[in-house]
Amino acid sequence: MRVAVVGAGVSGLTATKCCLDEGLEPTCFEQSRDIGGVWRYTEHIEAGRPSLYPSVISNTSKEMSAFSDFPYPEDFPVFLPNAQFLNYLQRYAEHFGLRKHIKFGTAVVSIRKHPDFATTGQWDVVTEAEGKQTLHVFDAVMVCSGNFSEPYLPLHCFPGIERFQGQYFHSRQYKHPDVFQGKRVLVVGMGNSGVDIAVEASRVATKVTVSTSRGAWVFGRVFDHGYPWDMVYNTRLMSLIRNRLEGRGWEQGHWQGLFVVSNVRNPLALHSCLVREPVLNDDLPSYILTGRITIKPGVKEFKDNSVVFHNCPEEEPIDIVVFCTGYNVSFPFLEEAVIKVENKHASLYKYVFPTHLQRPTLAVVGLIKTLGAMMPVTEVQARWVTRVFKGLCRLPPQSLMEKESPEVLKTEWLVYMDELASFIGAKPSVLGLLCRDPRLALTIFFGPCTPYQYRLGGPGRWEGARQAILTQWDRTLKPTRTRVPASSSSLCPSLLTVVGVLLLLAALVFGFQ
Amino acid sequence: MRVAVVGAGVSGLTATKCCLDEGLEPTCFEQSRDIGGVWRYTEHIEAGRPSLYPSVISNTSKEMSAFSDFPYPEDFPVFLPNAQFLNYLQRYAEHFGLRKHIKFGTAVVSIRKHPDFATTGQWDVVTEAEGKQTLHVFDAVMVCSGNFSEPYLPLHCFPGIERFQGQYFHSRQYKHPDVFQGKRVLVVGMGNSGVDIAVEASRVATKVTVSTSRGAWVFGRVFDHGYPWDMVYNTRLMSLIRNRLEGRGWEQGHWQGLFVVSNVRNPLALHSCLVREPVLNDDLPSYILTGRITIKPGVKEFKDNSVVFHNCPEEEPIDIVVFCTGYNVSFPFLEEAVIKVENKHASLYKYVFPTHLQRPTLAVVGLIKTLGAMMPVTEVQARWVTRVFKGLCRLPPQSLMEKESPEVLKTEWLVYMDELASFIGAKPSVLGLLCRDPRLALTIFFGPCTPYQYRLGGPGRWEGARQAILTQWDRTLKPTRTRVPASSSSLCPSLLTVVGVLLLLAALVFGFQ
Repeated sequence: MRVAVVGAGVSGLTATKCCLDEGLEPTCFEQSRDIGGVWRYTEHIEAGRPSLYPSVISNTSKEMSAFSDFPYPEDFPVFLPNAQFLNYLQRYAEHFGLRKHIKFGTAVVSIRKHPDFATTGQWDVVTEAEGKQTLHVFDAVMVCSGNFSEPYLPLHCFPGIERFQGQYFHSRQYKHPDVFQGKRVLVVGMGNSGVDIAVEASRVATKVTVSTSRGAWVFGRVFDHGYPWDMVYNTRLMSLIRNRLEGRGWEQGHWQGLFVVSNVRNPLALHSCLVREPVLNDDLPSYILTGRITIKPGVKEFKDNSVVFHNCPEEEPIDIVVFCTGYNVSFPFLEEAVIKVENKHASLYKYVFPTHLQRPTLAVVGLIKTLGAMMPVTEVQARWVTRVFKGLCRLPPQSLMEKESPEVLKTEWLVYMDELASFIGAKPSVLGLLCRDPRLALTIFFGPCTPYQYRLGGPGRWEGARQAILTQWDRTLKPTRTRVPASSSSLCPSLLTVVGVLLLLAALVFGFQ
Repeated sequence: MRVAVVGAGVSGLTATKCCLDEGLEPTCFEQSRDIGGVWRYTEHIEAGRPSLYPSVISNTSKEMSAFSDFPYPEDFPVFLPNAQFLNYLQRYAEHFGLRKHIKFGTAVVSIRKHPDFATTGQWDVVTEAEGKQTLHVFDAVMVCSGNFSEPYLPLHCFPGIERFQGQYFHSRQYKHPDVFQGKRVLVVGMGNSGVDIAVEASRVATKVTVSTSRGAWVFGRVFDHGYPWDMVYNTRLMSLIRNRLEGRGWEQGHWQGLFVVSNVRNPLALHSCLVREPVLNDDLPSYILTGRITIKPGVKEFKDNSVVFHNCPEEEPIDIVVFCTGYNVSFPFLEEAVIKVENKHASLYKYVFPTHLQRPTLAVVGLIKTLGAMMPVTEVQARWVTRVFKGLCRLPPQSLMEKESPEVLKTEWLVYMDELASFIGAKPSVLGLLCRDPRLALTIFFGPCTPYQYRLGGPGRWEGARQAILTQWDRTLKPTRTRVPASSSSLCPSLLTVVGVLLLLAALVFGFQ
């Protein structure tokens, strides 16, 4: 069974690897000269390729961001600068022999149903390399092209932009802060890039203003005690509590006490802000409180050399504007009928399978955004997809799939991971383990849901998984310790404290609301 | 009654102002050309004067760092860059007409007991200006010379430093990160300057290593929800709970679970680390976890071009070393007999009055270090001192004073403030206010202990104090909000939540330990 994989970024690499694991024959088409996708930094901006600024650092910790059978080298930092993350991807491709399945410099031009699609599920894939087009027929297709290639820049929403005499550009064009030297900078949009750029700009600019119409919840990479946020937030216990709290007015109540810029570190409070995607930045709260960055409401109007904000009488003089307005979701090589995209939202079953194809032989990997590491999500998607392709897993009837269109922002990372893992029989059973291996069971329930948990059993079981889980904190905390404390079980008491307080809090909430 | 004030920094200015309030005649001697002390940045390093690096930002928030009858301008940021803090001091000097009492360019050379000191308590003060010495006789002396002038650089503790071929200097010499460009940098010592310098260096250096033999607790300026740390930590409720917990094994237990570098945000956990002064830095935890800064144990030995650390087999190649080893406490103009300094610790009653003088006519202002803002502490010290000088307050007998030598690191900011305020009758009575002005009473108890609380009554009562207290959060949170949330009482529910959880926690601790 031959599978076309579109793109050799995070998703494409793991898709190729999962195909090989399942005995499928992958051919991965990568339009650029090398692997890495969004993570391969190039100084030069290439059309149709994602573009990164050199200071980008992974938002999720290395233990949570690993592919499930391939932990990071011990000496890598907990949060990876982009060059080191690319290095990890290169090691992954090397270790699993993926490169020989990748055709570099080959763009996918179109993907159309083969004439006998209804019976065979095959696809006609046209690729282009060095100006020459080739037609291939594949039994299945995995779309791993990401969504950081087509910038979204709605200039019509900014009255007066045509008369603005300063410079402006989309965040995609941003590489180095030098352009802001001595300038009065406006950053429009308060997503992760917007905030990153504002912080870098503030070190050289005369003044930095961030405009946001909806505000944002901000939290940092490092929680109390130097723990990475995602290792505290994405645990089975926390996920359970969050799901119990949901719909009990708890969320709503917290969101009412709206902080336009907040520095959220409480993992429960964090959940309550999922009304929109939160922003992850270590610097912003202190940069605002020390006056290095000013936050303003949405832009009302541009003037020749200044900007007027909603509900603000004074004009703000501005020299340079960065629009951090995000990206469109688009699949230019697909007919619109295959995947409908409305309002940056693609209608896909579990964010992977188009709901209305007669045969489930096309899937999108790595499109969903959840509050957690991307890599294990793409991997579990690819593991599921390859087993659907092989007929080992079945999709529900079309009517059911269409009913269950997931709400983007409400999809919880751990719930989603577990669901897809359960489809392929790789979801760990805490209760089942409790008798056989209580230490492991407790670590799985109370500790961070590291991806290794999905290699303990089922297809693709990995011998190293148990050991990787039991040593996850050692690798994480090593760089914050210069010596071993006298009492060796340093983590247990504070973990117990945390758990105790959480259980108490849960009791309180369930008891009194 | 004529009072000599030595130095016109934070302490000297408020000492001068308090003298005027009490009808004393202050003469302030400032060796440099202007006011501000450590807060007046100069590019050039002057002998005997403190030296600042230009990126220094106040560690305490503006509401907590105000002199109690002189709030900051509304448009100042919550944490003040040094230039703005100096601006505040200039406004303070202007507003209270302090400049005419300051003799600039005049150094204090010696302070000796006047021959009839036993009866009059007078002091002979020799000053030097433009090479000419003058003898003055004063009725009392306030020593406000600070302790950032004499760097402590114990080179004998670093074997092999004499053969080290790279560059090294004390943190006092540091101004700009340019010196670190492309270098392998070692920062020795993990105090506030050490960490500040390491963070700045890491943006330009090839590699930055921080060496610390004891480790440190690290916390950031901004706590959850964007609240300044000191407005959460220094409340009467929190102080009460902390003091109840003390000595119940709670502290000890937490300190046992030693994190060499930790990112402490829980105000209770924070207290448990007061075994040594914690480090305040917004960046360090994330810089460590992203690999930009490496932490190592204490230095064992310097070699020609490298350093060996304790318990580490490998040598670390180093080009440049910054010794952030702090400052000596010294009073070169005083005889040793007046103030004994041992191991950076001066033996003074309440850290202000020498214990063995026949007459209490000499006091040190601004020497104590507590976990809270410095300015209100110096002010309440000066208010107390001036009333002792006038005979309105009495010191206990010498034997009692000597017994009560305060433990440096165990002195809690709020307890200390309250104690000195109670000496002069300016401590607010929460219970007393509860009937007359319940809103104010609750704000005083549950809210941050802003300095205005010490101007509600007693000598030096300020009419604006009540209003300043009730609006303290408005001024603080303004920059983090771009609009007013729908439910106007945005702070109340979360404050209530916090209080509820804390009370619960307190109940738990008192109940079960």
